[in-house]
Amino acid sequence: MTLIVALDPPLEEDPIKWSIGIIEKTREYVSGFKIGLPMLLRTGVDAVKQLTAATGGSSVIADLKLADIGFVMSLSAAALARAGVRGVIAHSFVGVRDALDALKRTCEREGMDLILVVAMSHRGAEEVMTPVVDKLLGIAKEVAPWGVVLPATKPRLIQRGRRILGEHIKILAPGVGAQGARPGSALCAGADYEIVGRAITRAPDPADAVLRIRKEQMEVVKTC
Amino acid sequence: MTLIVALDPPLEEDPIKWSIGIIEKTREYVSGFKIGLPMLLRTGVDAVKQLTAATGGSSVIADLKLADIGFVMSLSAAALARAGVRGVIAHSFVGVRDALDALKRTCEREGMDLILVVAMSHRGAEEVMTPVVDKLLGIAKEVAPWGVVLPATKPRLIQRGRRILGEHIKILAPGVGAQGARPGSALCAGADYEIVGRAITRAPDPADAVLRIRKEQMEVVKTC
Repeated sequence: MTLIVALDPPLEEDPIKWSIGIIEKTREYVSGFKIGLPMLLRTGVDAVKQLTAATGGSSVIADLKLADIGFVMSLSAAALARAGVRGVIAHSFVGVRDALDALKRTCEREGMDLILVVAMSHRGAEEVMTPVVDKLLGIAKEVAPWGVVLPATKPRLIQRGRRILGEHIKILAPGVGAQGARPGSALCAGADYEIVGRAITRAPDPADAVLRIRKEQMEVVKTC
Repeated sequence: MTLIVALDPPLEEDPIKWSIGIIEKTREYVSGFKIGLPMLLRTGVDAVKQLTAATGGSSVIADLKLADIGFVMSLSAAALARAGVRGVIAHSFVGVRDALDALKRTCEREGMDLILVVAMSHRGAEEVMTPVVDKLLGIAKEVAPWGVVLPATKPRLIQRGRRILGEHIKILAPGVGAQGARPGSALCAGADYEIVGRAITRAPDPADAVLRIRKEQMEVVKTC
């Protein structure tokens, strides 16, 4: 499957209950779920165990966008692993030595997937990150993580990432749906998974939204 | 005062109780306390209220090294502000537009200090961050945060930061003590605060360690 649901609980809801509601409605039809730092700050990592237990085998990825020295990132990653979180997202920007090298060792030890942000899609990304994107891809290639994050709104960066990183590193593409990219467009550019948030989580019927998006993915992929 | 204590509770301790113990022993002699993401993941943000309440007026800074789009960073910052946290650390590399501009507005609304990482001291920082340090300083200048983070182990970057950012932005320098920089050396280079962790928190008598470090700061500053 090619779809990951980004869980972004509204402030007025109990974040764990709300997330489990979405998970139970959609888990049969998706590869996994992405949770973010704002939710983790609200709940703490222990509460996430209820959420990972509810996925019935689909994986949960923590989008912390870690960007610290290796020792500190490793403490956070290990805490998540013990709550059943399957993957953790960090920034390639912090470099390999004493940073991502240590985090990768921790992920391997904890049986966790490491995912590195190589590019982002907001306007501020053009100020520093996009101009050094080849360096960031080089860091990702050196670290050899399970996957990288490249935005669906920048299909040429996805193509470039696929060319440079080869076939064995997964490409996860956020920005599909409410943020503008059409379902399937990132898959056409070479991504393995598209990450969709509000178009699913805020739909009146999330399962139906998932099925419509998967159908659109398949139609678009046929015409790549 | 020129000293901030980095609280990094050992895994085998209750992080809030342990932190309050250090706070109560040292709060009279320091400017504030820094807490990190690993602790916040363990406790959740609500538990931090007990910790901020124990400081008796010294400030608590959350070293999340936020590095996301503005909307997501703002959700995290707002949650921290409501727990009495006074300042939040974000990365300048995510850029101004739709990122730090939005976070700055949130911090202003919440009465919170924004602090931007401009440079780091681990070896991986040389791969991408240090080569673009002038761009990162430019972003900090444009955002005009309350403060920036520049490592005590790189006094020339502190001098450069002071020259480019002017006198009104605070410079916070971690890396003093266990990580190698001598107390007072970053102050001599132009920093406003030195951040010390283990040399205080793991000392048999943390208050005594603070007083010794302050004395050393004063002696070193006299000879700048």
